[in-house]
Amino acid sequence: MAESRLVGPVRIVGVGLLGTSVGLGLRDRKIETILADASPTNLRIAIDYGAGRAAKPGDLPQLIVVCVPPDVTAEIVARELEAYPGAIVTDVASVKLAPLAELRERGADISRYIGSHPLAGREKGGPLSGRADLFIGRPWVVAAHDAISYQQAGAIDDLILDLGAILVEMTPEEHDLGVALVSHVPQVISTLMARRLTGAAHSSLNLAGQGLRDVTRVAASDPDLWVQILGANAGPVRDVLLAYRDDLDRFIDALEDPDAPGAQRQVAEELAGGNVGVARLPGKHGQDRRFSSMIVMVNDQPGQIARLLNDIGELGVNLEDLRLEHSPGAQIGLAEISVLPGAVTRLTEELAARGWRIAG
Amino acid sequence: MAESRLVGPVRIVGVGLLGTSVGLGLRDRKIETILADASPTNLRIAIDYGAGRAAKPGDLPQLIVVCVPPDVTAEIVARELEAYPGAIVTDVASVKLAPLAELRERGADISRYIGSHPLAGREKGGPLSGRADLFIGRPWVVAAHDAISYQQAGAIDDLILDLGAILVEMTPEEHDLGVALVSHVPQVISTLMARRLTGAAHSSLNLAGQGLRDVTRVAASDPDLWVQILGANAGPVRDVLLAYRDDLDRFIDALEDPDAPGAQRQVAEELAGGNVGVARLPGKHGQDRRFSSMIVMVNDQPGQIARLLNDIGELGVNLEDLRLEHSPGAQIGLAEISVLPGAVTRLTEELAARGWRIAG
Repeated sequence: MAESRLVGPVRIVGVGLLGTSVGLGLRDRKIETILADASPTNLRIAIDYGAGRAAKPGDLPQLIVVCVPPDVTAEIVARELEAYPGAIVTDVASVKLAPLAELRERGADISRYIGSHPLAGREKGGPLSGRADLFIGRPWVVAAHDAISYQQAGAIDDLILDLGAILVEMTPEEHDLGVALVSHVPQVISTLMARRLTGAAHSSLNLAGQGLRDVTRVAASDPDLWVQILGANAGPVRDVLLAYRDDLDRFIDALEDPDAPGAQRQVAEELAGGNVGVARLPGKHGQDRRFSSMIVMVNDQPGQIARLLNDIGELGVNLEDLRLEHSPGAQIGLAEISVLPGAVTRLTEELAARGWRIAG
Repeated sequence: MAESRLVGPVRIVGVGLLGTSVGLGLRDRKIETILADASPTNLRIAIDYGAGRAAKPGDLPQLIVVCVPPDVTAEIVARELEAYPGAIVTDVASVKLAPLAELRERGADISRYIGSHPLAGREKGGPLSGRADLFIGRPWVVAAHDAISYQQAGAIDDLILDLGAILVEMTPEEHDLGVALVSHVPQVISTLMARRLTGAAHSSLNLAGQGLRDVTRVAASDPDLWVQILGANAGPVRDVLLAYRDDLDRFIDALEDPDAPGAQRQVAEELAGGNVGVARLPGKHGQDRRFSSMIVMVNDQPGQIARLLNDIGELGVNLEDLRLEHSPGAQIGLAEISVLPGAVTRLTEELAARGWRIAG
């Protein structure tokens, strides 16, 4: 990585998971960081943890990163802009239009504000969950607007590069619509599916397979945070949900009489459309066609998966993806391995030769 | 496993993934199997593969397992009941009410028929995907009805136990409602989410994280098969979808004016309901609380995951679950490891001592 162009100090307001991680990451790059938080306890933890030092009179931060919950983001950004007239201010809220609009309403000096959003996080929050490498390789959106110059926004770019994230430029509108589609609506969809399970018979739930588990995994997310996110991005989320509901209505209609003319074609077209949509997702998980998968049976004992993957490593094959599936009530699991298509035949033979049971 | 009580021979009609797997599994248990299929090519492949022998005049099967697509299941079951008046007949279709109703309509001798449904499968079909161990540890529903005696149904029980599956008794109604909820509706929900991605901007799709990938994974399923499944179980699927749509409507209404009185509480309650629902799922993936997870950074190179899991194995820690997450555009992945809570502290320390970067 090139020498940082950030001079610092960087002031971080809010030392939860994201703020602490920003602090740790910048300290790793030898940049001075100043921490602030409404909770003295959290502030003390984050300082002890090494994310930065406490603020003191006369601090002249170059850049301020506001890492507070979405519903107070604009308020805190406005306060910081006023308190530090020489600083550029950014925030990390997962919506970008609402804070900008509120700052305009408040008459804040938005010529020094530019919103951003790192797409990084973990299920655990709080300063002790913070990690210097949380942002490495993750998209970090910078939401440009007309009132700030390219040159001033450069400090944000430097911050993102210093933290190892991938800079993505979008307008606030593009950002909010994008995250509505790829993050906020999937959360709602998953939550509502999981809601259907609350009254279900245990005998039904025992039939659940990997599909339901995947669809409902994010339904375990923190309601307090998501109320804020969904509230702040209500318009775009609602737009996508309305389009989703139209599709759902057509599906429900087609199922009313599945033998009616056109009903099966309707269902088939929706299913095929789903195939097309999921294939558009970039990256390893989305484009299954780039990789071939095979399934290996694994005893549910310490070291078994390790031994399997050690064997794969010894064969010089790069594991592109791995998914473990557990058989309910059994001492056997299935490991689904994705590798480059050219490696499958040899890997199958070699693993079988080493005693692995290949289930497909 | 105890000595099989199945005498055989067992006749298997339809040698796709399930039929071939039944054949291979029973051959493993030294039970004679007879194969039949409308496709001479598939039949030849399944015989060559070792799943059984061809039918011959005078065959007197004890049990017949019909493994054909849902839309022809009842027709084939009726034919088999008539052709082999001494045999018990079962099927493996993923719906249970429709075949039974159609058999009654056809005036078939259902005193010798009992439907069943193994909850096992793979994304790949065809005889060459068949595996003797496909059913091990999986639920296999037997859908009892009044017209068959307990004693006669015993042959089905023996079949299921011989194949290593877990016998689950349900009425056809309970079964169809259960799979509508835990399998068919999640498929629709996922498909419709993926459908929303077909027109999305690439810049939005680049922001996609693991949540969207999980929610849409099953949307890659085979439309031809799912048209049949959804058509055959249209009533229960539609009932669950209607309840889902009611929840969705309430959610959409709450987002219309998120600052209106009660709107945030409504959203929070739905989100909390999702938490409750997902926590009801049995098994390792559903009940995250039974395990603690930690995240380790892994270079995207051959043998890295193997080396990590080898280290975990050497430390005597049993890996309960593993999830790989790839950073877009980066040469670094995250391995999320689930272990028993008591093992986390030591594992974190020991892995760090071995040079692993623990990201949380």
